[in-house]
Amino acid sequence: MRIARVIGTATATAKAAGLSGHKLLIVDVQDARGKVIEPSLVAVDTVGAGRGDLCLMVQGSSARIPAGAAGLPVDATLIAVIDTVSV
Amino acid sequence: MRIARVIGTATATAKAAGLSGHKLLIVDVQDARGKVIEPSLVAVDTVGAGRGDLCLMVQGSSARIPAGAAGLPVDATLIAVIDTVSV
Amino acid sequence: MRIARVIGTATATAKAAGLSGHKLLIVDVQDARGKVIEPSLVAVDTVGAGRGDLCLMVQGSSARIPAGAAGLPVDATLIAVIDTVSV
Amino acid sequence: MRIARVIGTATATAKAAGLSGHKLLIVDVQDARGKVIEPSLVAVDTVGAGRGDLCLMVQGSSARIPAGAAGLPVDATLIAVIDTVSV
Amino acid sequence: MRIARVIGTATATAKAAGLSGHKLLIVDVQDARGKVIEPSLVAVDTVGAGRGDLCLMVQGSSARIPAGAAGLPVDATLIAVIDTVSV
Repeated sequence: MRIARVIGTATATAKAAGLSGHKLLIVDVQDARGKVIEPSLVAVDTVGAGRGDLCLMVQGSSARIPAGAAGLPVDATLIAVIDTVSV
Repeated sequence: MRIARVIGTATATAKAAGLSGHKLLIVDVQDARGKVIEPSLVAVDTVGAGRGDLCLMVQGSSARIPAGAAGLPVDATLIAVIDTVSV
Repeated sequence: MRIARVIGTATATAKAAGLSGHKLLIVDVQDARGKVIEPSLVAVDTVGAGRGDLCLMVQGSSARIPAGAAGLPVDATLIAVIDTVSV
Repeated sequence: MRIARVIGTATATAKAAGLSGHKLLIVDVQDARGKVIEPSLVAVDTVGAGRGDLCLMVQGSSARIPAGAAGLPVDATLIAVIDTVSV
Repeated sequence: MRIARVIGTATATAKAAGLSGHKLLIVDVQDARGKVIEPSLVAVDTVGAGRGDLCLMVQGSSARIPAGAAGLPVDATLIAVIDTVSV
C-alpha cells in the first residue's frame, strides 16, 4: 500500500455505471516524511476520507476487495485514514 | 486510476478478435494541473470519449471490469469523461 | 496497452512447458512519436508480428486473455500490429 | 519480490474491517547492497517482522496468497525475514 | 517478461510455508545489451537457473502460473534460461 494525501476531487457526468455515488478523490503518494513521490492518482474512498487527510491506498486487483469497492472498475481505493506515522 | 488526456488514435487490421469494433485511443497520463506524467498509453473507451477529452483511466485487471470491456485483452480502459478537477 | 516496436528475439532451451512453440519477441515500448520509453521487454505474439513491426502490447493478467495466450505463464502479449498512429 | 527494510509503523482508527489486528509496517525497498530504491511502502506482516528487519515483500494479487493475508484488501505483504543476502 | 541476470541468493528461516524448498534468487533486470535497468528483484526458479544465468522472468499474477510455482505467494518467477538474444 501507499501513503496518500487527499488533495482534491474530480467530477464526471459520463462515467461507468458502478462509479455513481462514489467520490473520486485526487491523491498524491507521499513518503513517510511527506515528500510527494507520485502525483495525482485518483482513488475511490471506503473510509470517509476527505481533502487533506493522510490515507492508506491499496492498488491493483486488491482495490476491488474492500467492502464498498467490490466489483467496481477501480484500481486504487482508500482503505484507512492514517492517525500516526512513526519512522 | 489516472487522469488521462486523449491525444490521438491508433488503427490495426491484424488484431485480437475481441478488439474489433473498439477504438484504440492514445492517451497521456497527466497530473491534476495538466503536466504529462506518462506519455502514449493506449486505452479502450467505454464512455464515448474522443480526442481532447480529459478522462479517468483504470488499469490492470480492473480494466476488464467495465461494461463494454468485459473479457477483452486490455489493461487500460477509459471509464469517465472528467468534467472538473478541483485541487 | 503500450506501443511496442519488435527489435529482436530470444531463444531458450530450458523453459516452462507452456512456452514451447511460442516466439519470444524483444520489444521496446515507444511513445506515439517513436521515442523509446522502456527498453527490452519480452512478449509473446498472437498476431503474426515480426522484427520491425510496431505493435500493441497488453501486460499483466490481461496478457493471458488473448486466444493463443490463454493459460500461458506470460505477462506481456502482442495483440495487434499497428497500421497507423495519429496524434 | 523485493528486498524491504522495515523502517516504521502506521496506525489508523478508521480502516477497512479486514485490517483490524494487522500491523501496518512502513518499508523501504532496497537493492542487494542496501541502497534505497523505493521509499515508504506500507505492508502487512505474516512472519513476525519488526522494525529494522530486512524482509522479503510480495506485491500485487500475490500479496493476498500467504496464510494470514488471504482475503485482505492489501497489495504488499512481508513473507520472509531475510537471514543472508549473497551477491 | 523481462530479461534477468541471476546475481545472487537470499536465505530466510522465518518465511511463508509455501516458500520452503524454493531457492530465492536475486536478479537484475537488464536490457537486450546487458545494461541493468532495475536492480535486485527476488524471484523463484522453475527451470534450474543458477548464479550468472541470463533468464526470462515473469511478474505479477502470471508468476503463479508455471508448474512449480502454482499457489505460491510470489510475484516473480524464472521461466526460461535464455540461450541467445538477437537484436
